[in-house]
Amino acid sequence: MSQALVLAVDVGGTNIRAAIINASGTILDEKRIQADLSQQDISEHEILSILSQFLLDILQTSEAIQAIGIGFPGFFMQDSGVIAASPNLPKLIHFPLAEKLTHMLGIPVKAQNDALCAAIGEHRFGAGQGKSSLLHITLGTGIGGGLILNHTPYTGETGMAMEFGHICVDYHPNARRCGCGNDGCVEAYASATSIADRYAEKTHIHCNTQEIFQSAMDGEIHAIEILAESGTYLGKAIAEAIKLLDIHTVTISGGVVGAWQFLYPHMLTSLNQHLIPPLKEHIHILPSSLGDHAGILGAASIAFEGIN
Amino acid sequence: MSQALVLAVDVGGTNIRAAIINASGTILDEKRIQADLSQQDISEHEILSILSQFLLDILQTSEAIQAIGIGFPGFFMQDSGVIAASPNLPKLIHFPLAEKLTHMLGIPVKAQNDALCAAIGEHRFGAGQGKSSLLHITLGTGIGGGLILNHTPYTGETGMAMEFGHICVDYHPNARRCGCGNDGCVEAYASATSIADRYAEKTHIHCNTQEIFQSAMDGEIHAIEILAESGTYLGKAIAEAIKLLDIHTVTISGGVVGAWQFLYPHMLTSLNQHLIPPLKEHIHILPSSLGDHAGILGAASIAFEGIN
Repeated sequence: MSQALVLAVDVGGTNIRAAIINASGTILDEKRIQADLSQQDISEHEILSILSQFLLDILQTSEAIQAIGIGFPGFFMQDSGVIAASPNLPKLIHFPLAEKLTHMLGIPVKAQNDALCAAIGEHRFGAGQGKSSLLHITLGTGIGGGLILNHTPYTGETGMAMEFGHICVDYHPNARRCGCGNDGCVEAYASATSIADRYAEKTHIHCNTQEIFQSAMDGEIHAIEILAESGTYLGKAIAEAIKLLDIHTVTISGGVVGAWQFLYPHMLTSLNQHLIPPLKEHIHILPSSLGDHAGILGAASIAFEGIN
Repeated sequence: MSQALVLAVDVGGTNIRAAIINASGTILDEKRIQADLSQQDISEHEILSILSQFLLDILQTSEAIQAIGIGFPGFFMQDSGVIAASPNLPKLIHFPLAEKLTHMLGIPVKAQNDALCAAIGEHRFGAGQGKSSLLHITLGTGIGGGLILNHTPYTGETGMAMEFGHICVDYHPNARRCGCGNDGCVEAYASATSIADRYAEKTHIHCNTQEIFQSAMDGEIHAIEILAESGTYLGKAIAEAIKLLDIHTVTISGGVVGAWQFLYPHMLTSLNQHLIPPLKEHIHILPSSLGDHAGILGAASIAFEGIN
């Protein structure tokens, strides 16, 4: 009998990735389609149509696929696979994504919040392997978070736990405005978007974060400063989470991790400054060891749970 | 056969309270001794001696007592009854309080962090009854917190979860210094000590919080302002906890709850200001319904667990 495989899916704002993965977390094949899901008026029907078409094509290539796991940007009702709401896709309300797709595709489908999937992936296959609890931060266009407590993914009462990007790190009246409408959120200082915005404000040069990281590598002082400040703000936000949760291991994935050497020392200094003394021991802040595969490996992990 | 009773103990800085409690949470008898445990050099031996003498006297009055539960100001290693450390009693390191007393008293003894006991009490017998998850805040001389997640007390990896008093609510360079050594902690703004300090700074009148609450009732503007500000800072700190934990119910016990009518409206305004929109629904902030008995009823609850 051939080994059991799952199809793991990572639904992003501009593209959808899918990978065929075995129980050891090895990615055997990977596909990607462009799909603009950032349109606010996209309907449940359109989402289902895009996903089912893409996934059916892949399912036909391998009979060994026994389940599907999906990481999706939305608030899920515990592990029901039902999206309670999705901030960027306001038409999705109490939408039973997993159940609908199970019915359409004739194969068990599980679905969970994308940042929580990244936490699950990092915990099962990555830098958080073997840890009982893990706080995972996704540091990309936005900032998200996922929480593993005593080896179990934690969703909160309405699937909205770990809104890490919206931890307040600046109560000053001139604090930066965040996309959520509040001021001073860590996302407004340390996401890729904010890093590019802050660099442009300082230098009047508009470039993307990869170019800013390269400038920092080249010794450009403004790029180094902006990244140092981002590290400082991240450290503040992580300190708040540790004061509440007493978790020893923090892992970070996402594009901004590419600037780790410029972020990390400042993150650590500010973390130590804001933690209370007995909490300072034992804390490990680690970059993801899975690159941009944390989420898709977490989606594989929940798919395997459905068939075991 | 007579009903099973437990002896529940609440160890404070200046006195120790003990109560005989039945399974319904009814307090049948209560005793209190003065004991200055705020001396930093108090030893394990002295703590055991004070506690065992006090508790033996009570045990001799009732044969129906089957177990003892103790709420103690320290960081406990999960539910082992071992104190990893106690910020105010630095000589207690890896101190197996429950095991030692079990041996000395010849009856099962359980022990847990005092603020977590208050959360357990509020969850089992008080305003948090029936809720799956609960964030409980103790608002007294200091500010502490306890967390119930999915009906289970949450301790963190080293018993230090819910250091709620040290959530930062002010990153301004002139933020108030906290007892922990950091600046801007909510405890430096909203604890009984801080409320009295801030009132004295504003009015040059030194009085205790009860007198300040009375002044506010009498319409004294400075008292009302200080309490309103405390409510605002508490709301900020609660918002941070909810953004991470997505918990719907928050209960608050301790002496400062006496000023609820002056705190609550400002707490709610600032909570709503700092939460992200989808988290604003469903949140209930409630004063404890157990008065100053939340902790001792939680201690009773852990004692009953030991005999059931």
